[in-house]
Amino acid sequence: MAVLRILGIDPGLATTGFGLIDADGQRLAYVASGTVRTKEAALGDLPGRLKILFDGIREVVDTYQPDCASVEIVFVNVNPQSTLLLGQARGAALTALVSKDLAVTEYTALQMKKAVVGHGQARKAQVQEMVKRLLNLAAAPPQDAADALGLAIAHAHAGASMAALGKVTELTRRQHAHFRGGRVY
Amino acid sequence: MAVLRILGIDPGLATTGFGLIDADGQRLAYVASGTVRTKEAALGDLPGRLKILFDGIREVVDTYQPDCASVEIVFVNVNPQSTLLLGQARGAALTALVSKDLAVTEYTALQMKKAVVGHGQARKAQVQEMVKRLLNLAAAPPQDAADALGLAIAHAHAGASMAALGKVTELTRRQHAHFRGGRVY
Repeated sequence: MAVLRILGIDPGLATTGFGLIDADGQRLAYVASGTVRTKEAALGDLPGRLKILFDGIREVVDTYQPDCASVEIVFVNVNPQSTLLLGQARGAALTALVSKDLAVTEYTALQMKKAVVGHGQARKAQVQEMVKRLLNLAAAPPQDAADALGLAIAHAHAGASMAALGKVTELTRRQHAHFRGGRVY
Repeated sequence: MAVLRILGIDPGLATTGFGLIDADGQRLAYVASGTVRTKEAALGDLPGRLKILFDGIREVVDTYQPDCASVEIVFVNVNPQSTLLLGQARGAALTALVSKDLAVTEYTALQMKKAVVGHGQARKAQVQEMVKRLLNLAAAPPQDAADALGLAIAHAHAGASMAALGKVTELTRRQHAHFRGGRVY
């Protein structure tokens, strides 16, 4: 199997974590990680913040050219207004990925923790520590980046190629069919 | 004052209404209206539906070249899961607009109804009827399109040029400054 470059995304309105790994079967290699922060836009300027988030994720895709993306499924918050804001941030993040024709698979935080630590009740610090170990890093990455790398690892463990085939969006599939049309089979 | 072309957007995950008007001071002229529907994507394929929404709105912008956009502020639903889905749809819609460097102003349904019908308790049918009258249409537009046209009308009434100047996103503002740099003042 060829090396699969997976982009993990932990979406948030203020800070979105991203992390990239190369998965070669069971062998995982760290590529890059970091955060997209929207704080340079005025707090009340939601469209401006979503644009920073959208542009930032597209820049990550352009720079590292991942094959697919793994995004955390967010849950409703006790505060409905926060749920709405997080939903809009996640919408902008997903849009950035599909606008680059990336196949997107979604995982819950529980699934990510199970894949990285071995059980769903893991604390943030345990995720950071296990991400450090699994990827042979000199230090544990910050929380948002660690969660994003954890999502990429979860996707690698889930049998990335299978998942990527199954979850490709309808539009991407149509485009694949189109690209196939140009080749001789 | 020059004619201002305003794009109104009524965001929704299944159906997003759009409506364009030209505002020349107090004179309003209908340009176009319709809906972007995401139902051709599988119901559970959220990334795919957001891509249809994003691409659809960008196509409307490319076709009709509006000067600014007016988007309905959505509220939290009784069902938190619906709030999350609507938030993600609205995030994709806003992202489509700012990715085209459009200034976005946000209005509540109450503000739209006040601008179109004269009071905030107006029923859907009253909005449709008043949009028909204000824009001199042969028939009342369907609900989603009527709401979107109503948002464009609300923005025209709010003194579109003032609002557009005040609410332009930080990023757009920087780009305006850049464009100005090329001219002689």
